This record gives sequence, structure tokens and C-alpha cells, in this order.
Amino acid sequence: MKIHGLCTIAITPFDNQGNVDTESIRSLTDFYINAGVQGITILGIMGEVNKLSEGERQKVTEVFIESVNGRVPVIVGCSAQGTNVSIELAKQAERLGAAALMIAPPANIKNLDVVFEHYRMVAEQISIPIVVQDEPVTTNVIMPPWFIAKICTEIENAKYVKLEEAPTTIKTTKILELIKGDISIFGGLNGMYFFEELDRGCSGIMTGFSYPEILVETYNLFTSGKRDEARKYFYKYLPLIRFEAQLGMGGVAIRKEIYKQRGAVSSGHTRFPGAGIDERTIVELKEMISFLDLNEQVTV
Amino acid sequence: MKIHGLCTIAITPFDNQGNVDTESIRSLTDFYINAGVQGITILGIMGEVNKLSEGERQKVTEVFIESVNGRVPVIVGCSAQGTNVSIELAKQAERLGAAALMIAPPANIKNLDVVFEHYRMVAEQISIPIVVQDEPVTTNVIMPPWFIAKICTEIENAKYVKLEEAPTTIKTTKILELIKGDISIFGGLNGMYFFEELDRGCSGIMTGFSYPEILVETYNLFTSGKRDEARKYFYKYLPLIRFEAQLGMGGVAIRKEIYKQRGAVSSGHTRFPGAGIDERTIVELKEMISFLDLNEQVTV
Amino acid sequence: MKIHGLCTIAITPFDNQGNVDTESIRSLTDFYINAGVQGITILGIMGEVNKLSEGERQKVTEVFIESVNGRVPVIVGCSAQGTNVSIELAKQAERLGAAALMIAPPANIKNLDVVFEHYRMVAEQISIPIVVQDEPVTTNVIMPPWFIAKICTEIENAKYVKLEEAPTTIKTTKILELIKGDISIFGGLNGMYFFEELDRGCSGIMTGFSYPEILVETYNLFTSGKRDEARKYFYKYLPLIRFEAQLGMGGVAIRKEIYKQRGAVSSGHTRFPGAGIDERTIVELKEMISFLDLNEQVTV
Amino acid sequence: MKIHGLCTIAITPFDNQGNVDTESIRSLTDFYINAGVQGITILGIMGEVNKLSEGERQKVTEVFIESVNGRVPVIVGCSAQGTNVSIELAKQAERLGAAALMIAPPANIKNLDVVFEHYRMVAEQISIPIVVQDEPVTTNVIMPPWFIAKICTEIENAKYVKLEEAPTTIKTTKILELIKGDISIFGGLNGMYFFEELDRGCSGIMTGFSYPEILVETYNLFTSGKRDEARKYFYKYLPLIRFEAQLGMGGVAIRKEIYKQRGAVSSGHTRFPGAGIDERTIVELKEMISFLDLNEQVTV
Repeated sequence: MKIHGLCTIAITPFDNQGNVDTESIRSLTDFYINAGVQGITILGIMGEVNKLSEGERQKVTEVFIESVNGRVPVIVGCSAQGTNVSIELAKQAERLGAAALMIAPPANIKNLDVVFEHYRMVAEQISIPIVVQDEPVTTNVIMPPWFIAKICTEIENAKYVKLEEAPTTIKTTKILELIKGDISIFGGLNGMYFFEELDRGCSGIMTGFSYPEILVETYNLFTSGKRDEARKYFYKYLPLIRFEAQLGMGGVAIRKEIYKQRGAVSSGHTRFPGAGIDERTIVELKEMISFLDLNEQVTV
Repeated sequence: MKIHGLCTIAITPFDNQGNVDTESIRSLTDFYINAGVQGITILGIMGEVNKLSEGERQKVTEVFIESVNGRVPVIVGCSAQGTNVSIELAKQAERLGAAALMIAPPANIKNLDVVFEHYRMVAEQISIPIVVQDEPVTTNVIMPPWFIAKICTEIENAKYVKLEEAPTTIKTTKILELIKGDISIFGGLNGMYFFEELDRGCSGIMTGFSYPEILVETYNLFTSGKRDEARKYFYKYLPLIRFEAQLGMGGVAIRKEIYKQRGAVSSGHTRFPGAGIDERTIVELKEMISFLDLNEQVTV
Repeated sequence: MKIHGLCTIAITPFDNQGNVDTESIRSLTDFYINAGVQGITILGIMGEVNKLSEGERQKVTEVFIESVNGRVPVIVGCSAQGTNVSIELAKQAERLGAAALMIAPPANIKNLDVVFEHYRMVAEQISIPIVVQDEPVTTNVIMPPWFIAKICTEIENAKYVKLEEAPTTIKTTKILELIKGDISIFGGLNGMYFFEELDRGCSGIMTGFSYPEILVETYNLFTSGKRDEARKYFYKYLPLIRFEAQLGMGGVAIRKEIYKQRGAVSSGHTRFPGAGIDERTIVELKEMISFLDLNEQVTV
Repeated sequence: MKIHGLCTIAITPFDNQGNVDTESIRSLTDFYINAGVQGITILGIMGEVNKLSEGERQKVTEVFIESVNGRVPVIVGCSAQGTNVSIELAKQAERLGAAALMIAPPANIKNLDVVFEHYRMVAEQISIPIVVQDEPVTTNVIMPPWFIAKICTEIENAKYVKLEEAPTTIKTTKILELIKGDISIFGGLNGMYFFEELDRGCSGIMTGFSYPEILVETYNLFTSGKRDEARKYFYKYLPLIRFEAQLGMGGVAIRKEIYKQRGAVSSGHTRFPGAGIDERTIVELKEMISFLDLNEQVTV
């Protein structure tokens, strides 16, 4: 079955000392699944993957996949600067039970032929699908629609695309026009344009918004034919989605804080360097949650 | 009197052949003022300043200032790569009646001492206030809070700051903590965080949102003590503000189209290279306007 | 006749007050021609074009072309952010007698289709050749070999290419493999690889090295079949070429100083913001000139 | 004793299948030491560190340190995006016998306070010296002279600086003016300005030039008071130094090829993505080596 819907980008829970907190991975997994997510994407930027050792990457993958226990697909981030490292991560993830792999281009590669070859080399070593991750801000690699279409046309297991370059709406339409066949596009940009992305033909979204149930409900309304209700429902919660979106990397801290307050994890600890929020941000968040009547949802 | 409120970033109207349309500058000016704007900022990026000849810059300045006729302050963009060019533009703008000048750093200057000196050299040649324009995406110059505070403390007529680096909320608070005295900060980011910017102490905003009356009303509600109403009102229109925000430079095209449909200008023409919108974007916009019951406002 | 050889990137001489010094343009022109240059390229980055007003751009063009008086071709930089501005500059340069126009892409345009259209639109308004200027560092636009080849194949008067992305050697070979017909490639990178560029098939170079006679002699030796002598001669002066190359924008200041000491211009004034050299740099330069026995060449 | 002289940036030898080749690490180490290097810097960019797994990083460190066996100091690259990962790498390197650690800032961090804190946090966990590595091109972090001086003044074991932002000459002078005490600066930029860097007060250089003996001899001549001879000797080999410098990341491939031809390693294999050289580059290199009479040095 095709991956679809909200494949939430999972945080990586740490305890207050900064160690990977496997117990919290389990409770977080249940939290996500109770929220209705259609998939869980681990080891993305929001998962602080760049601050994990390789041993920790493996452990996090194992515990997530074990906790999910087949209830939803688990997509595992396998991006690396070296193709060989990406291949090792990909093979390990497949072996551990990943449903798909999410791979961004190696950073600062200007030659798209080289980027293509990177995807091809990884793809031929695994048999599960790949999510081609557009990630221009962190990788400094621009992948135009024709290039993403080329990857998905020429590389057999490049079955999914996750967009991040604004406007994702127009980019979605362009890629869908260029690709024939069985390719699904996922939106991004922190969920800011999820209704419009769905309306343009996206099959879901991969993002780390701290109230995943809101994106799930938007998706469910939209795909059950209730387009106007989906829009209305989605716009109601836009103030919060937008609030988190402003924080960039600082968003990890605020999202972890929310997950802690919602009882999903034991600590809001993030690894350095990271957050850049201030006390007022926390106050603003609380006011926002009250304004949107989300308080009652604070427990799992 | 201090500049404050919505100092809308004005579009530069062209006719269908791409010539500066002075008649439309006049109707647009009336449109803006009828919408309640507290100031008009011309020759910004949204004003396609980089696609105007120097003669056109001068003409646009003259016609706007003459049309406004003292009803609100006119802030004139005087950014240039060479300090001497910025000084010439600044002197001319002052002579023509500008209330203030908006100046971004010369692009790609990594040495902040040089950026400081640029501001100092321009400032000492004019007697009206300067708006220090944070504009990291187009200039590739990052101005940390301490540096903006230094400019405003050491250069007498650097009286205003216009922020554009996300999150503007936290940056506003940091700068206000560092600056003593009579400095006003304006928000940006297409208005996406205007409520929160005001709540953090901003004195207004400079942005080109195509329904300026919405930002004006938000400001008026907020400054008349109706904070909760300001928030509620602002959040109602967030879907549209956010919609325009996604378009980056493509936003000029859609905004000009809206101003044309609202009767403010005669043509939606933009100069090349620019827009990157598709037909679906226009449809999305119309649906959004219907959804928000903004149709009745389509005439001046 | 095809443009070829050293088409030196000319400085724009100012007097000590920073005004364009037309008398020095005349003496500088004679200096360049006495040095044997095969062409003069004005209004490039080394010509501080971004710090000239439009009136000054026109004046500088007029005086250079008048001073050259047909002795060598004059190539005029016509880059601008707006296509319409580039067209106006191009038409004016053609009218004033330019032999060719040098045009870099508008900055920060990520969509190469848009860059192509920019070139096409300018080209169709003029009848003289265009030099497609690769300039990734200042424009932030990467033009891969296939794209440059496409421009030169599909746009009739795109007859020349000036490379600046390292390694220019390999890029030269790739473009020449892709282009059929009458296209000439010019090297760049401050002359650092001029021998190798010639050896790869370049027809000359456009750069602002302060001892143009050295690049001229390298070219003349090479094209008269004396490849080994050309290499030996060129390598002899590499220490100085490399010395200037390290200075980036600071190189304008040191080059102007040298031209002043060589009697070619009356002042070494550069416009702000610019140079970043220190006193020791001047000392290093003098030692270098002594080391290379270039002192006797200090007068025209 | 202070680290000084040429602390060559070592390549990481692979066999033709792309596996770490420990035997070649041993022969390469002897090659370097026979060439007279005063130190060996491993796990830098030229060492393809981004394409090594953590296990390989450790193995490479162990084998190099064991092979060197105290004959010269070994400096180990411990850069990472997460501070905790950098700390783990640093502690491991210290435990394995590193003489010093080379650390570049985490990529894309715009806030220098955060960069400072990263260095402080790593430094307090180890007791050996740190080389503060300026690396703006790959990290996108600009460290001005005052900031580097601040790190070296306030963090006790930040004893060394390795520069990479051009011009390194002027930056060296500025930092030395700002720092009091026992700090050594190393040059970079592929050795292109090594004579001038020494002349400005550098204590050595860290770079991966494939004829390390040339930089060693330059250093030895200079430090034994033979400044003019050092200059003359250095300039003689500039053509080759410059040739390698043009290749950027492609330089790894050509350098490995040279080390193979010189008998120092068994294979020139580089990991993907990497090199961008063509066949002509190899020919050019061979001609250059002949031109400089370096052929006889092709064996260890």
C-alpha cells in the first residue's frame, strides 16, 4: 500500500541529561498513533539527526520500529554527505524494517548529474521505496521540477517526493504534470499550506507540527470529499501552525516542550546547538493554545 | 511625529506596455490612504525597484509624494550597492519631500564594520530619519540584534528598524532590550506575525499585503487597547496573508492582480524577471477571497 | 572579426574626490592599447559599475569608446537585475559604438528558464554580439556547461562566453564539446589559469590584471605556436597574478594604485564600500614588483 | 612544544573497492614523514571525513597515530554538526593520542554566540589544544578576526587557528594584532600564499598539497632566516600549487592519483560524490610535473 496522509516527522526524545530516551520513544509512538498519523518519519532534521551518533541512529530506528510494531509505516531518514554512508544507513534501515527511506541530496553539490547518481547508487542497493527529499535551505541544492521528475521516472524505487521549496503548491502541480505513473508527493513547509497542497494533488505531508491530529483531521476531511470543511478546519488552526513555522531550528525546542506538556515524552531536552527561543515564546504559545481551545488535548 | 502603523510597501504601477503609470500611482495612493495606511513606503523590493531606471525612480518618487500631498509620511527606498549612489538617492528623496529613507545593507558585504560605515556615510548627508532595513535573503547580510542596536545608538538619524529575519518576534525583543531611547521597530515577513510583533513592542509594519485595511484594523484595534479583538481579527485573515507570503518574488504579480481587480491600478503588469505563479494560483486566490468574504471590498 | 586575446576589464578612474576622471580614461585607454590589449571591457565589477550612476555609466562608455577610437573593440557591461534595464543599457551601448555587450544573469534567479529568457529578451533588441558572463560568486547563479551551450546555440548573437566558475579549464572543455560552431570562450579567475585556458581552447581572457602586457605576451606567444615559451613566460609572473587574485573586491584598490604608479591614471581612488587591504599589502606588492623586475615598466 | 610548520592535511587511503586501506595509511605516514612534515592532520575535508562512518573515523585515527608513533604530532579533525558528537569525537581522539583537535564551526549557524559556546563546550571536555578552523565555504559561517581572537583569548585550550578565508594574509595580521600571547596561526588556501602567510607571522600551514616536501622546504628556508631563498623556492613551484588549488573538491582525486604515482598509497580511489576532473587534467598534471622537474621525486 502506498504511504499517504500525515507521516509526521518525529522528534527524537532525550532525557534531561541528553541521552536518547527509549521509554519516551515508546510513549511518543503511541501518542502519534493515537493522534491518527498515517506514518512516522524518523531521523529527519526535526529529529535532530545531525546530533546523533551512528549508534544512536541505529538504536532510535530499532526502538521506533519495534514500538510501532507494524501499525503504520516507518520512514527512516538516511541522508549523508557520502554516498557510501547513505547506502550503509539505507541497508541498515531496510534490515530493521523501514517501510521507506527519506533521502536529501548531499549538501553543496552544484552538479545535478552527481545528485542523480547519488540517488541511483543508493536506490540500487535497497528494495524499499525512497522519498526524494527537497531540502534547499539545509542542503543548498535546488532541485527543479524537471529534475525531481527525472529521478522519479528513471529510478524505479524513487516512489515519493517530499517538497520543501516554497511555493510547494506550484511545484506540486509542475511535478505532477511531468511525471507519469505511480508517484506520490508530500507537502512540507511546516504544514503551512497543507490544504492547498492536498488540493493540488499531494498525497499527504511530512512535517513535525506538534498537534499532528489537526493535520490528520484535515487530511481525513479532505480525502473523504469534505473539501470545504477541510479548509475551514485547517484555517482555524493556522495561527498555531504558522507560529511554530517561524522558529526554524528553534521549532524543535518548542515542539519538544509541547510534547512534554502533552505527556508524550518525559523531557523537552534538545541538543546543542539548537533552539533560539525566549521566555516570551513560551507565553505566546500558551496563549495560542488557549485561544484555539486546545488545552483539553494536553494529555494523551 | 514618529512614523508608525502600516507603512505599506507600495507596488510600482505599470501600464500594459510596462511603462510607469503615473495615473495609477495617483489612484493607488488614494486607495492606500482610503484603506487607512499610516505611511507609504516606495521603491522597496515589492516596488520592483531593481527594475526601474534612475529616471523612473525619481519620477515614481515625485508622483507618489505629490499624490500623497502630506496626508501620510512617504518613506523612500534608497538602497544601493555603492555608498555614493545611496547618498545621491537619499539626497534626492529628501529634496523631493520624503519623510524617511529605507536603506538595506549593500549586498554580500561580510564585514559589519563596512556596513556600519555605509549607514554612517549616508546618514551624515541627510537630515531626515533612516529606516535600517534588515533584508538577509536578498542582501546576504545578517545583521544581529547587537549590530542593529549599535547603528541606532551611534547614528543619530537611524530612528527606525524594519525587520525581515525570522523570527522577527524574538529579534524585536532582543533589539528593544539593547536600545535605549526613541527607536521604533517595524515588522515584516509579509505580515505573517503582525499581531505577535505588535505584542512584542513593534510600532508598526512595513509590508506589501494586498488588503492593507486588514493590517490597519489590526493595528488600530491593538493600539486602542483591544488586544484580544486585534488577535481574533488578525487570525481571521491569516489564510490570505499566508497565501501571499508563500510566493516570494511571485507575490508582486498576485498583489498587482489584486490591486487591479480592486480598481486601484489599471494593469497588473510586472517587469521581467519576476513572477512564477500559475493559473491555479489565481483560482486559489479567488476562492480565498470568497472564503474570507472579502469580495465586497473589491472596489475602492 | 572575432573578439579575442586579452580584453582587459578596465578600471573606472576617479579623481581624488571620487568623481569620474575623463582625462584619466583617455590616458588609461592609451596605456592599455600601448600594452597591446586586444580589447577593452568596461563597466564590469572591477570597473566598480555598481557604484556608478546611470549618467556616469553613459559618460564612461562615451569617453572610453571615443578614446579608443576604433583601435580595439570595446565590450560594455550591461548587466542589470531587471531585463528592461539591461535592454536599455544594451541599446545605449550599441548606439554609442560598443563592439559587444557583456551580460551576467540577474542575481539570485534559481530557475534557469528565466535566465535563458532574460538573455533572449536582451539579445533580440540589439544586433551586436553578447558575451555570456558566468559570474556565480556575485550573482549566486550557477550556469552548468549544458546551459551555457544552450544559450549560445539557441540565441544567435550569444557569440562569446566569459567563464568565472573554477575550474575554468574543465568547464571550457565541456562547453566546447557541447557547442558546434562559431563560439569563443574567454577565461577569467583573475588570469590565474590563462595558459591552461588557452591550452584548452579559450580564445582569450577577460580580467583586470594590472600588468596587462604580461597576459598579452602570453597570448601572443601561445597563438604564434610557441606553447612552451608561453607557459614559461606565464609562470614567471604567476606570483603577481596570484597576489592580486587573493584580494577579491580589495583587488580594485591595489590595481588602481598600480595604474596610478604606472602613470596610467591620476588617482587610485576607489568608491566605498570596497577595498579591504592594509599597508603591508602595498609593501608586499612593491617587493613582488622588484622580485619580478617589473620596476622599469612603471611608466607608460 | 608548539605545533608548527607543515601539518599536512592527510588523505584517507582507500583500496580499489573503496575500503579504508590501513596498509596504505602506514606507507603514506612514512611518506609524509620522509617528506619532512612537522605534523599530520587527519580527518579534514581533504581526508573525505564526511564519507567515513564513525567506525572508520576511529580506525583511521588509530592507524595513523600508531603509524606515526610519536614522530610528529597528529592533529585530528573533530568537527560535527552537534556539539555532543564533536565532544565524543574529541574525547576519543584525545584518548587515542591526538596532539591537538581541529574543529570547524557547525554549518549554517548565523549566531556567533552559539558558535563560541560550541567551542567552549567541546574545549572544557578535553585537555589537549584545539585548532580553530576557519572554513567559510563548507560551513557557511564567517568568523571575523575579532571573533577568532575572542575564542583564543577566552577559551584556554584554543591555542591554534587555521585560516581559510581569503585573503589569509590580511586576516593573519588582524588576528595577531588582536591576540596577546601564545597563539599560532596556520595558513591555508591550498598553500597558494604560504610565503606571504609566513611573512605575516604564520607559524605554519595546514593543507593537502601533493608535494609536501615543497612546503616543508619553504618553511625551513624561511624560518632559518633565508627569506629571499624561501620566496624564490616557493614561487618556483607555484604553478603546481595553483593547479591543484583550482580543483576544489576535485583536488582530492588528483592528489590521491599523485600519491599513488609517488608510491605512497596503493590506490587513487575516492568516494562518491567527489571529483570532477577530466582526462586532460591528468595530462596537464604530468606536463606540469615535467616542467618543474619533479619526476625524479615520484618514488618515496
